[in-house]
Amino acid sequence: MNWSITAPDGALAVAIARKIDTKTKPLGALGQLEALAQQVALVQQTLTPQLRQPHVLVFAADHGIAQAGVSQYPPEVTHQMVRNFAGGGAAINVFCRQNGLGLTIVDAGVRGSFADLPAVRDEKIAEGTHNFAQGPAMTAAQCADALARGARLADELHAAGGNVLGVGEMGIGNTSSAAVLMHVLTGRPLAECVGRGTGLDAAGLARKLAVLTQAVGAHPAVVDAADPLAVLATFGGFEIAQMAGALLRAAEHRMLLLIDGFIASAALLVAARLAPEILAYCVFCHESDEQGHRLLLAELGGRPLLRLGLRLGEGTGCALAYPLVQAAVNFLNEMASFESAGVSDDSGTAAD
Amino acid sequence: MNWSITAPDGALAVAIARKIDTKTKPLGALGQLEALAQQVALVQQTLTPQLRQPHVLVFAADHGIAQAGVSQYPPEVTHQMVRNFAGGGAAINVFCRQNGLGLTIVDAGVRGSFADLPAVRDEKIAEGTHNFAQGPAMTAAQCADALARGARLADELHAAGGNVLGVGEMGIGNTSSAAVLMHVLTGRPLAECVGRGTGLDAAGLARKLAVLTQAVGAHPAVVDAADPLAVLATFGGFEIAQMAGALLRAAEHRMLLLIDGFIASAALLVAARLAPEILAYCVFCHESDEQGHRLLLAELGGRPLLRLGLRLGEGTGCALAYPLVQAAVNFLNEMASFESAGVSDDSGTAAD
Repeated sequence: MNWSITAPDGALAVAIARKIDTKTKPLGALGQLEALAQQVALVQQTLTPQLRQPHVLVFAADHGIAQAGVSQYPPEVTHQMVRNFAGGGAAINVFCRQNGLGLTIVDAGVRGSFADLPAVRDEKIAEGTHNFAQGPAMTAAQCADALARGARLADELHAAGGNVLGVGEMGIGNTSSAAVLMHVLTGRPLAECVGRGTGLDAAGLARKLAVLTQAVGAHPAVVDAADPLAVLATFGGFEIAQMAGALLRAAEHRMLLLIDGFIASAALLVAARLAPEILAYCVFCHESDEQGHRLLLAELGGRPLLRLGLRLGEGTGCALAYPLVQAAVNFLNEMASFESAGVSDDSGTAAD
Repeated sequence: MNWSITAPDGALAVAIARKIDTKTKPLGALGQLEALAQQVALVQQTLTPQLRQPHVLVFAADHGIAQAGVSQYPPEVTHQMVRNFAGGGAAINVFCRQNGLGLTIVDAGVRGSFADLPAVRDEKIAEGTHNFAQGPAMTAAQCADALARGARLADELHAAGGNVLGVGEMGIGNTSSAAVLMHVLTGRPLAECVGRGTGLDAAGLARKLAVLTQAVGAHPAVVDAADPLAVLATFGGFEIAQMAGALLRAAEHRMLLLIDGFIASAALLVAARLAPEILAYCVFCHESDEQGHRLLLAELGGRPLLRLGLRLGEGTGCALAYPLVQAAVNFLNEMASFESAGVSDDSGTAAD
C-alpha cells in the first residue's frame, strides 16, 4: 500500500501570520493557539479555515501479550469496555457529547462477538493478536488488511464531509505493544519506552520490562531491519494498525488529525515512518502521564496542547483538547483587527 | 468591609473520591480532572455538581503609572479596547461565545465616556488612578468603593442563579500595578515580579523595573506594614480592586471562581490576604507567559489547567479552560461505574 501524502504548501504562511498579527491583541499574546491557527489554516490552505464534523474513531482490540501478565487489568476488560462505549458510559462518550464530536467504536480485533450491538463497527481481523513473546503478533496479510480497513473508515468520514479526525483506542496490553514499537522504530532503550500503563506498581513494571525485553530478543531480524510494516506486524495490535491506516488516509485527504496519548502516538510513529509528511497534519492533543509519551512526542516533534496527567486513552485527549482547536480557528475568523476596531497598535498610532 | 468566607466542609471528600474511583477507568487516569471534580463537588457540597450560568466579568481601568512609560502600548488603548469588547471583536468575546459563558464589560475607571455604549456597565470610580510613582494610586474611600462595586456585581450574578464566576481585565499599565502588589504582599524581589507585559523588549523591561523600584521606594511605610487594603489603595488599580471585591463576594456565595492570568491572580492575592479561605473556591485556569505568574501561582498554591503561553488577560484563560471544568463535572455525573457497566475492576473480578 502506498501513501501519497504531501505537506501543505507553505506559500500561504506569510499571509496567515499577517492576519494573526493584526488581530486586536499584543503580538504573540495567544501563544500556542497562534501556532495552531497557523497550522490549521495551512492544512486547509485558506485564511478562513472551518472545522467540519469532527469525529473520533475508537479502535479496540485484544493482545496476545496480555496473557504474559503485563497489565493491571484482565484481558476481558477490552470486551467489557467496548460494551461500555456502546452504552455511552465511558469517558470518551461523555467528552465527545460535551464538545460536539462524533464517535464511532470499531471492533478491530476484540475477543467475543458484538453482534447484539449494531453501533459497534465490525472490522474484526481476528480475536486478538498472537503473543509476540512467542511469534509475530499478526501476519503481513492481516497487517495490510488492518491498514486498509482503517483507511476505509477515514474515506467514509471524508466522503461525508468531515475534515477533522481524532483516533483513540482500547486494548488491554496495548501499552506493551506501543512501547516496543517505539523502542524498535526510534532506537531508544526499552526501559525509557515502557511505563505503568493502567497502573502497574514497581514490581509489575519490572515484570513488564522483563517480558518485553525477552520478547524483543525473540525477533532479532525484525528489530535490526526496522522496516515499519514488519515491525508493526510483529509487535503491533489490530487497533494500532487500523489507527495508522486511518491517520495515513486522512492525511491524504488533508484532514486535520487529532493525536491522543501514548498508543495513538505509537500508531502515528509507524505512519510517520511510512510517510513523514503526515506530521504536518497532526495536532498533539496532550502529553500523557505514561512515561514514554513525553519522549515519543519529542521524537515526533509534537508540542502538546494539554498536560493534565491523563493516562486513559480512548481518544479522551482529542475530545478534551478539541475546544482549543476551535478557539484557534475562531479567533482567526472572528476577532477584529486593529484597523477594523480602531485600536492603536504598538507603534502608538490609532490604526483608524 | 468584612468578608465571611468559610472553606467547604471536607466531610464529603471521601464519598466524592469513592465516586470518582468507581468510574470505568483506571484509578487516577483522568489526572488533574479528577482533582478538579473533587474540588467542584466539595465547593457545591454535592456528589452531583452542576455548573450554572458561568459568567466572565471584564473590568477595565486606566493607570496613572502608564504615563511613566511602562507599557508597549499607549494608555488610550484601554478605552479603545473597551469599545472593541462592546463590539464583540476581542478574543474574550470570541471565546465566551464559543464556550457558552456570559460576558459583562465593566468600566471600573477608564478615561473617557462610554455613554454611547449601554452594554458597558458603568462602575467608574475615576478617570484612571493617580501615578503611584508620585502618590497613592487611589484614596482609601475609592478603594473601598471599588471593592463594594465589584462585590455588588457578584451579588447580581449569584441572585440571577449563576454559580461560576470568571474575572478578567483590561488596563494599559496594569502588569506594573500587579507586579508591585505581588512584590509587597509576598516579599519576593521586584525583579522576579516584573515582566514584559504586552511585549516590552529588554530595554523596556529594564526601564519598567527602574520606574517601579523608585515608585515602591516612595511608599516605605505602606511597604513595611504590608496591610492588604493599604497596599491595594497605594499600588492597585480600579479594575484590580473591583476584581478582588467580586472574587471575595462570590466566594461568600460559594461560587466557583475562575482565575485568569497575572493581573487576576494579583487581585486574588489581595483577596487571599484579606480572607485566605477564598483559595478553596479557585480554579487556576492557566499559567501565563508573564514571568511573575508562575511564581505567583506557587504563592497561591495554584495548579493551572492550561499552559499555552497566553499573555492576553481579558479573562481569556477562564473562557478557554472552562470546557475542562465542564469535563470534570460531566465525567463525575455521567460516566458509568464498574458495577453499572459490568466492567472488571483491577482485582480482575467482573464487578457485576
